[in-house]
Amino acid sequence: MIETVIIGSGNVAQTLATSLTRAGAKPLQIFARNREAAAKIAQECGCEFGSEPEELAKAELYIIAVSDKAIGAVSKSLDFGSAVVAHTAGSVGIDKLDDAIRNKAVLYPLQTLTKGCKSDFKEVPILIEGSNSAALETVKQVAELLSEKVLLVDSKQRALIHLAAVFVGNFSNHMYVIGEELARDAGMEFEVLKPLIVETTKKAMRAQSPQDVQTGPAVRNDFQTKSLHTEMLVERPELKSIYTNLSNSIWEISKKKSQK
Amino acid sequence: MIETVIIGSGNVAQTLATSLTRAGAKPLQIFARNREAAAKIAQECGCEFGSEPEELAKAELYIIAVSDKAIGAVSKSLDFGSAVVAHTAGSVGIDKLDDAIRNKAVLYPLQTLTKGCKSDFKEVPILIEGSNSAALETVKQVAELLSEKVLLVDSKQRALIHLAAVFVGNFSNHMYVIGEELARDAGMEFEVLKPLIVETTKKAMRAQSPQDVQTGPAVRNDFQTKSLHTEMLVERPELKSIYTNLSNSIWEISKKKSQK
Repeated sequence: MIETVIIGSGNVAQTLATSLTRAGAKPLQIFARNREAAAKIAQECGCEFGSEPEELAKAELYIIAVSDKAIGAVSKSLDFGSAVVAHTAGSVGIDKLDDAIRNKAVLYPLQTLTKGCKSDFKEVPILIEGSNSAALETVKQVAELLSEKVLLVDSKQRALIHLAAVFVGNFSNHMYVIGEELARDAGMEFEVLKPLIVETTKKAMRAQSPQDVQTGPAVRNDFQTKSLHTEMLVERPELKSIYTNLSNSIWEISKKKSQK
Repeated sequence: MIETVIIGSGNVAQTLATSLTRAGAKPLQIFARNREAAAKIAQECGCEFGSEPEELAKAELYIIAVSDKAIGAVSKSLDFGSAVVAHTAGSVGIDKLDDAIRNKAVLYPLQTLTKGCKSDFKEVPILIEGSNSAALETVKQVAELLSEKVLLVDSKQRALIHLAAVFVGNFSNHMYVIGEELARDAGMEFEVLKPLIVETTKKAMRAQSPQDVQTGPAVRNDFQTKSLHTEMLVERPELKSIYTNLSNSIWEISKKKSQK
């Protein structure tokens, strides 16, 4: 079994640590600047913790699960010897790990994690990369303990998938936020939209492609309804521009596909 | 029990007819220009069908479940006597029903319906309106047979909810379409994004407000990741403009809410 240290104390660090523990591969140590937070995760897993550089345990794999911006600095500040060092970020290249590290890797779980919510990675695609075959092999073994869907990708592919994740995750959630605002303008709560949201998602999950199940005024190019809608948004130019932008994009993409 | 005729043969007509039948309130007749389609739904429900104006059955309530554009013409072309006549459209005012109709109503199920898929309206909010109290009472009785969530709204409120539905339904589905395109650019299939989509939706459904669970570079105002993403979209100006537009909107709304 590969001896692993998790660095960080956020959602990703916590979920990785507890998922590894459940998979029978308890980390050696949780290491984080925030000593209390490290101790808390370590207690959940029944492992050691540390927060001072000289306390860092010797391991075969260090997983740096910190914010994107901190990856470079953290990877520079600690002595990893010749171990494999992996980060967990979608949009950060493998080469952002410090130059002094010989065995670099990435282990990116394609999921949105919630503080305090117990998640695990079984169904979650984990995208991995290694700067050499030994580093890749190490990170692959650990990823396969966590998930049934381990995919080998390079930094460029991972960046594209991370961008796709922003669209399907953050941006679709923002559509719910706007929907809530409009429902409140009508004197109703977000609640009223939930059955529609659930069904829309289910339909897309069942479809070969989400394009096949698109409905509404934009894909029908229904001018009358679209102009009614943009009139309703005349005092909210930012929403109006989103409406027009997305309606045009839906129509353009649907034209392209129907020409195929 | 209110004697009802369903006019139309599309998804809404079919779902209304079968849901009413299951609720023990079988329609008297399915009436549609397309005789075969009317016959098919009538067979599912075990009721009559018709397609010629003189075949229209006498009833207390006529539900016109046809495309938005056809509502006016259909409501003008038939003789409803003094019965209540309701349409089922989100963005069409009650006054688009022909002037000669005295008892006008609306019965709008807030859901996306799929051809051939059996849905019912139990959990679906039904938004109703009536041009007078008798019309409202009739449509209310029928709506309450179909759903546990019947809401009385005027045409203006209904139009806002329909617009909200375009955002949370059509537009979030379009985010999946764009996500699929980007995943394919990375050599992967839509499949890889599904666990993230399911979890994003679940989180929003559990949240008090979807704004509370927003994550990602836009809500953090993470310039570095945002500029990386817009660089990646430099050859796709339409996606770049959607990205910038939505990122700005996420940030503006999150600023507004944090100031409260």
